[in-house]
Amino acid sequence: MNTYGHTFRISTYGESHGPAVGAVIDGCPAGLPIDLSLIQYELDRRKPGQSRITTQRREPDEFEVLSGIFEGKTTGMPIHLMIRNTDARSKDYSHIADKFRPSHADFTYQQKWGFRDYRGGGRSSARETAARVAAGAVAKQLLATMGVEIYAYVSQVGPLRLETPYQELDLRQTDTNAVRCPDAAMAEKMYDFIDETRKKQDTVGGVVSGVLRNVPVGLGEPVFDKLHAELGKAMLSINAVKGFEYGSGFQGVEMYGSQHNDIFYRDGERVRTRTNHSGGVQGGISNGEDIYFRVAFKPVATLMQDQPSVNQEGEDVTVSGKGRHDPCVVPRAVPIVEAMSALVLADFYLRNQACQPNLAAQSAVASE
Amino acid sequence: MNTYGHTFRISTYGESHGPAVGAVIDGCPAGLPIDLSLIQYELDRRKPGQSRITTQRREPDEFEVLSGIFEGKTTGMPIHLMIRNTDARSKDYSHIADKFRPSHADFTYQQKWGFRDYRGGGRSSARETAARVAAGAVAKQLLATMGVEIYAYVSQVGPLRLETPYQELDLRQTDTNAVRCPDAAMAEKMYDFIDETRKKQDTVGGVVSGVLRNVPVGLGEPVFDKLHAELGKAMLSINAVKGFEYGSGFQGVEMYGSQHNDIFYRDGERVRTRTNHSGGVQGGISNGEDIYFRVAFKPVATLMQDQPSVNQEGEDVTVSGKGRHDPCVVPRAVPIVEAMSALVLADFYLRNQACQPNLAAQSAVASE
Amino acid sequence: MNTYGHTFRISTYGESHGPAVGAVIDGCPAGLPIDLSLIQYELDRRKPGQSRITTQRREPDEFEVLSGIFEGKTTGMPIHLMIRNTDARSKDYSHIADKFRPSHADFTYQQKWGFRDYRGGGRSSARETAARVAAGAVAKQLLATMGVEIYAYVSQVGPLRLETPYQELDLRQTDTNAVRCPDAAMAEKMYDFIDETRKKQDTVGGVVSGVLRNVPVGLGEPVFDKLHAELGKAMLSINAVKGFEYGSGFQGVEMYGSQHNDIFYRDGERVRTRTNHSGGVQGGISNGEDIYFRVAFKPVATLMQDQPSVNQEGEDVTVSGKGRHDPCVVPRAVPIVEAMSALVLADFYLRNQACQPNLAAQSAVASE
Amino acid sequence: MNTYGHTFRISTYGESHGPAVGAVIDGCPAGLPIDLSLIQYELDRRKPGQSRITTQRREPDEFEVLSGIFEGKTTGMPIHLMIRNTDARSKDYSHIADKFRPSHADFTYQQKWGFRDYRGGGRSSARETAARVAAGAVAKQLLATMGVEIYAYVSQVGPLRLETPYQELDLRQTDTNAVRCPDAAMAEKMYDFIDETRKKQDTVGGVVSGVLRNVPVGLGEPVFDKLHAELGKAMLSINAVKGFEYGSGFQGVEMYGSQHNDIFYRDGERVRTRTNHSGGVQGGISNGEDIYFRVAFKPVATLMQDQPSVNQEGEDVTVSGKGRHDPCVVPRAVPIVEAMSALVLADFYLRNQACQPNLAAQSAVASE
Repeated sequence: MNTYGHTFRISTYGESHGPAVGAVIDGCPAGLPIDLSLIQYELDRRKPGQSRITTQRREPDEFEVLSGIFEGKTTGMPIHLMIRNTDARSKDYSHIADKFRPSHADFTYQQKWGFRDYRGGGRSSARETAARVAAGAVAKQLLATMGVEIYAYVSQVGPLRLETPYQELDLRQTDTNAVRCPDAAMAEKMYDFIDETRKKQDTVGGVVSGVLRNVPVGLGEPVFDKLHAELGKAMLSINAVKGFEYGSGFQGVEMYGSQHNDIFYRDGERVRTRTNHSGGVQGGISNGEDIYFRVAFKPVATLMQDQPSVNQEGEDVTVSGKGRHDPCVVPRAVPIVEAMSALVLADFYLRNQACQPNLAAQSAVASE
Repeated sequence: MNTYGHTFRISTYGESHGPAVGAVIDGCPAGLPIDLSLIQYELDRRKPGQSRITTQRREPDEFEVLSGIFEGKTTGMPIHLMIRNTDARSKDYSHIADKFRPSHADFTYQQKWGFRDYRGGGRSSARETAARVAAGAVAKQLLATMGVEIYAYVSQVGPLRLETPYQELDLRQTDTNAVRCPDAAMAEKMYDFIDETRKKQDTVGGVVSGVLRNVPVGLGEPVFDKLHAELGKAMLSINAVKGFEYGSGFQGVEMYGSQHNDIFYRDGERVRTRTNHSGGVQGGISNGEDIYFRVAFKPVATLMQDQPSVNQEGEDVTVSGKGRHDPCVVPRAVPIVEAMSALVLADFYLRNQACQPNLAAQSAVASE
Repeated sequence: MNTYGHTFRISTYGESHGPAVGAVIDGCPAGLPIDLSLIQYELDRRKPGQSRITTQRREPDEFEVLSGIFEGKTTGMPIHLMIRNTDARSKDYSHIADKFRPSHADFTYQQKWGFRDYRGGGRSSARETAARVAAGAVAKQLLATMGVEIYAYVSQVGPLRLETPYQELDLRQTDTNAVRCPDAAMAEKMYDFIDETRKKQDTVGGVVSGVLRNVPVGLGEPVFDKLHAELGKAMLSINAVKGFEYGSGFQGVEMYGSQHNDIFYRDGERVRTRTNHSGGVQGGISNGEDIYFRVAFKPVATLMQDQPSVNQEGEDVTVSGKGRHDPCVVPRAVPIVEAMSALVLADFYLRNQACQPNLAAQSAVASE
Repeated sequence: MNTYGHTFRISTYGESHGPAVGAVIDGCPAGLPIDLSLIQYELDRRKPGQSRITTQRREPDEFEVLSGIFEGKTTGMPIHLMIRNTDARSKDYSHIADKFRPSHADFTYQQKWGFRDYRGGGRSSARETAARVAAGAVAKQLLATMGVEIYAYVSQVGPLRLETPYQELDLRQTDTNAVRCPDAAMAEKMYDFIDETRKKQDTVGGVVSGVLRNVPVGLGEPVFDKLHAELGKAMLSINAVKGFEYGSGFQGVEMYGSQHNDIFYRDGERVRTRTNHSGGVQGGISNGEDIYFRVAFKPVATLMQDQPSVNQEGEDVTVSGKGRHDPCVVPRAVPIVEAMSALVLADFYLRNQACQPNLAAQSAVASE
C-alpha cells in the first residue's frame, strides 16, 4: 500500500505529470504548533532546478494545507498537504509511451498492472518524494519538541568518498553548498565530478549518511519492527536506493566481537557506551547514542544518451535521451533521507507511548 | 508488533528460556499439501549443536502442528507451529540478571519496558528465529508450487570473502559443509578461521548472500512497500544484522549510469535484461531476473571473556564469559535468510493476486 | 485511524469548514474504466439542499481527480478524489466555540485532544461522508463488473415503519421521492412527518435498510473479520447510527432453531437456501443469497431550539438553535449506506482473491 | 485475518477438534501483574458442561502460558495462552463430512477454501471463543488497574425479555444462576424455557446486554474506528450474533431530538449528562458515562432433529441430530461478550496513550 507507519502514518498519492502529489498524515498528536515555513523550507531543499547539477524542471513546489491544522496547531485529525504539479510537460514523454526505459519501472509496472501512466514514470517518479518531504517536515516539528536532531549529508559521489567520521564534521554546514557535503573541499570536488558527468551526458551514484541525535532511549520494537529494520525499509523505499547499513555496517563483519562490543559505563545519570558500533540501536531499540547509517544510491537511470531497448510489443527500439533529469541524485536526496528518518522516529515515538505502562498517571488524567 | 506480512502473515512468540517458541501463519491459501519433514529439515539446519563451530546448546527443535493443517493439507486457517524449549538452563543466567551485557538488548529492554525476562536474553535471543524458520518452510512449499527457488549461502567470514559471482557457484553445494559456503576450498578456510576465533574465546562476523530464482514478474508494491525494501527490512530484523544491499549495492555507487543500466532485450516470449545490476527488482517490483542480495552480520556479542559493564543500579560490574554461544553466526543464519526471503515473497505473491483484476491473463505472462 | 479496509482501502480527510474533504483509495485494481459522472451522481444524492426536508447549506460537491486515473482507467495507484468546501460560513459557529452542544462530539473531542476545530463540528461533521460516497462510487463500479447490485432505502422514519419485506419492493423506485422510500404511499407520509418535525424545530430518527444482490459466494473471513461484522462496523461508523442487524436480526432471537434454520436445496448448478434468515451470510462468509440488513439512525442532535449546556470552563451556558441542519438524516444517509456497503464488499472481494490458490476454479462457481 | 486490534492485539488459532486452541496477545504493556486464576475463572464461565442447559461436551479448558509472562508479570512480549482440546470425538462428525448442515458454515467454508476441516465445524466452531475469553481475561486485568468494570448479562431468552433498566439491576448477581440473568425471578423462567426447548430437541435465541463502567473519557477514534463501531464489530464477530445496538439503539429511532439529546451539566470536577441515550459514546468517543449495549444471538443451528440438506455433490441428504450442543447459547456467551468488550477497550486505551501529546513529560522520562 502507499502508506507508511503504524501509529504516526502517512499516505501519499500522485503521479509525476498528474494534477498533484501529496501526503495525508494520520495520527499526529493534537496541539502541536506547526510552522508552515519549515515545511516550505524542506520542500525547497528537495525541489528541482536548484543548481546546474540538478534537473532543470521548474516546480515551485508550493503546498496547500487542506485539513488537520486549525489556528496554527494540529487538531489530531488527518493533515493533508497537497502540492500541485505545474511544469508537467506530458508531451515530452509521448515518444516513450510504449517503450521500456532501461533500469526504470516501465517494464515492471506494465507487467504488473497491464496499464500504466507513462508520463515521466507516473507514480514511479521520484516526484512522489515531495509528499514525503512535506510530511517529514511535520514529523520533524513533532520530534523537535523533544530535542531530537536529524541530519543527513552527502558522504560519497561516485568514487569520491568522505572518510571523515561524522563526529568530526560540522553537520550544520551541509546546506552551504549545492552538493550538500559538510566538508567544503570535498564538496567542491564532488560538484566538479557531477558537473563533468553531466557534460558527458551520463549520471553517477552516491551515498547519503544519516545522523539522528538525542533520540530517546526505547524507540523500536522487538523481532520484526526493529528500529534499524524500519529505518532500512524507509531508506530502501526511496527511489534509486540499493543498500543500507547502520553503525559498523558491512565493515563490522571483519571485526572480532571483542573489538566490536560497545562497553557500557555510567555518565552521571545516564548509562552510555564508550564506542558506538551499535549505531545507537541495540536489540532493535534505541539506546540513546547517536543513530548513524549510510544509504547507497545508484546512478540515475535516465541518460542523455540513446540506449537500445524493447517496446511493449517486444520489438527492438531506441530510447533517446530527452527530458530533464539529475546527473546525480544525492544532493536532492538529503532532505528525503531526513524526512524518512523523521517519519520512522515519529512513528516509533508514538508506538512507544502506547506500550508504556504508566497506567496510574494516565488514568488520573483521563478520569478528570 | 511481533507480526510480519500483510496478506501472508506470521506472528511469533516465545522467549529463549520460556516453555516454547512458535509461529502462527495467517493467510496461507487452503489446499496446499504440506510435507512436515521439510519443516523439520529447515529447523535442523538452524538448530544449535550442529558442529564444533556452533553453540553447544542441545535443542531437538521438534515442532508440533496445533492448527491449520488437516489430512496433510492447509485449510486456510491459522497454522500454528510450536517448538518446545527443552535445554533451558535458566540458572546459567542468574549471574547476569541485573547486568547489562555489552552490545546485547539487556539495557534497551530494561529501559523500554522496565521489566524483562533476563534468561538468555528472553525474547531478544536468536532462539526466536526457530519460529521464523518453521514458518518459512511453509512459505517455501507455497512458492515451490510456482517453481520459485530460494538459496542463501555464506559469502564472507571476517576478512575471508568469496569473490566468485553467485552465477558461477553451484548453490546446491552449500549444505555440504558446516560453514554453508558453496565453494569447498573457501569453506575450509572459513571453518578454520571460525574455529581459531572460538579458541581465542572471541567471535567474528560474516555475510550471507541470497539468491531468489524464478520469481514471477510483478511482485512488490510501489512507493513504500517495494520488494527490495521489504526484503531489506526482513533481513535487518534478523538478530545481529547490520546491513543489506541488493543488486549492485554499495558498489553500484561508483558506476556511471551508462554502465549500470540493464539493457532490455527479447528472449523468445520473455523480455529480459542483458546485465542484472538491478538485482531482479525495478521500481520496487520483480522483473523476472534473479533477485540477489547480501546481508552483513556483526560478530556475536556474547564472548567467553570477561567484560566490564554496569548493572541496573548503575554500578560497575564484570560480565563474565559463560553460557553456550556461537563463535560466528552466519552458518546457522543461512536457513534464516532463506526463511525470511520466502516469507517476503509469499506475502507479495498473495498481495499481487489481490491487485490483479485479470489474474489468469497475468499469470500467463508471469509464468513464462 | 481515518482509514477503512485491508486490501481495497480508503483514507479520508477534511473538516466541515476547512478547505476541502476527500478520499484516497488505495488498492483498486488497474485497468478499471471509471465513469466520473457516476461519482458525481452519488455525490448529488448525498449533497445538502436537495429538498425542503434537508439542510439548506449549499454545496455543489463537485470533485476533482488528483491521481490514479489515466485516460479514463484506474492505474492501480492511489485514486484521490477531492471535494472543495465552498459554503463554509465559519462565523455561524463562533458562538459555540467553547460550548458543548448536547449529543455532539464537542465535549469528547475537547477532552481527548485538548484542542479542536469547532467550526461545524470540524471532523465530526457528517460532511466527511461526502468523501466516503465518492470513494464508494468507485467501489460500486468495480463491483458492477461482477454484477453485484447495491441498494439502500429508508424503511422507517420516527414511528412510521414500512413493514413490506424488501423482496416485495421495487428498489429502483427509491430515488423517485425526496425521502428515498420505495413505497410511494409511505414515502408521502414520511415526508409529511419530517416536514412537521422540521416546523416544530425538532428532529427525528429513522432506519435505512440495505440489500446487496449477486454477491459472489465466499466473501468474508472467519473469526474476527466476518462479512457481517465488517458491514456492521462500517454502518456503525456513519454519523448518528445507533444499531445494526442483518438477516433475522433482533427478531430472530424469538425464533426456535427449527424455524430459523435455512434449509439447503439444489437449484440447477447452485446450492441455495429456501429461507434467508441468515441474511446471505453464514459463518461470516457470503453464501450467494441476498445480503440484507437494517441500520438505525438517531434523531439529529442539532436543534433549532435553545438548550442548556456547559462550556469548556464548566460554566452553565445556553446553546441556541442556529446553523443549517437536517430535520431527519435518513434520506441523505441512503447513498452513504450504499457507499459503505460497496467499500466493504470491494475489500472482501480483493481479500478473497488473495486467499484463493485456485482463483479460476473458484470464480466459475462464484459467478453462477 | 484471525487478528483483532491495532495496538493491543490478539491473534487466535485452532479448530474444534484439532490439538488446541489459543490466543497470542501482542502489545500488552510490561510490568502488569497477572493473576492466572482469573484467567481460569473466565474460562470456567465459558466452558461446556456447566449445567443441564449447556452442551455436555467435557473440556477442562485448562490453559498453559507459553510466553510473555515472567515472575508473575507481563514482559511486553507476546503472551501466548494455549488450551488443549481433550474431549475431541472426531468420529461424531464423520457422518457429516460432506454434508452441509443448515445455517452452519459448512457450505460457505467449502466454497471459499475448497477444502475444510469438517470435524465439529473446524474453525467455525464457537470453541474458538475460548481463546478470546482467555485473552480477554488479561485485558480485564489491564483495565482493572484503571477501575474499569465490565459486565454482561442475559436480558432476553426467546420471548422472555427482562425490561428492567440495567441501572436498577445488581449486576454482581449475574453469575448466581445458570442462565446468567441478574434478576432471579426472570432467570428461573428463562431456565425453564431453555430446558423445555432442549427437551423438544430444539434451540432458541437470546440477548446479552453489556455495561462498561468507569471507562475513561477519550477512548475511540473519529470516523471509521469509532468506539461503538469497534464494539459492534467485536460483538458481531461472535458466533451466532445477528445484531448490535448501543444506547437508545433501534428504539431511539422513534424519539425526537429534543427528547433524545443528553443535556450536559457540571458535577463537581466532571462534566456529565443528565440522560444517557448516547450510551456513553459521543462522536465515537467515550464521554465517561456508562457504555451499554445489546447483542442479539440467533437460535443455535445444531438441532437434535433430522433436517433435509444437500451434500458437496449437490445430492439430497438428511442431516441427523447428533453431537453435543447448547439449546441456547446466551448463558455461555456472557463471558465472551465481556471478553470482547475488554479487548476493545484495552486496544483503545493504548491507542489513546499514543495520540496524547504529553510530549514534555514523556521526553523527560525517556531521556534519563
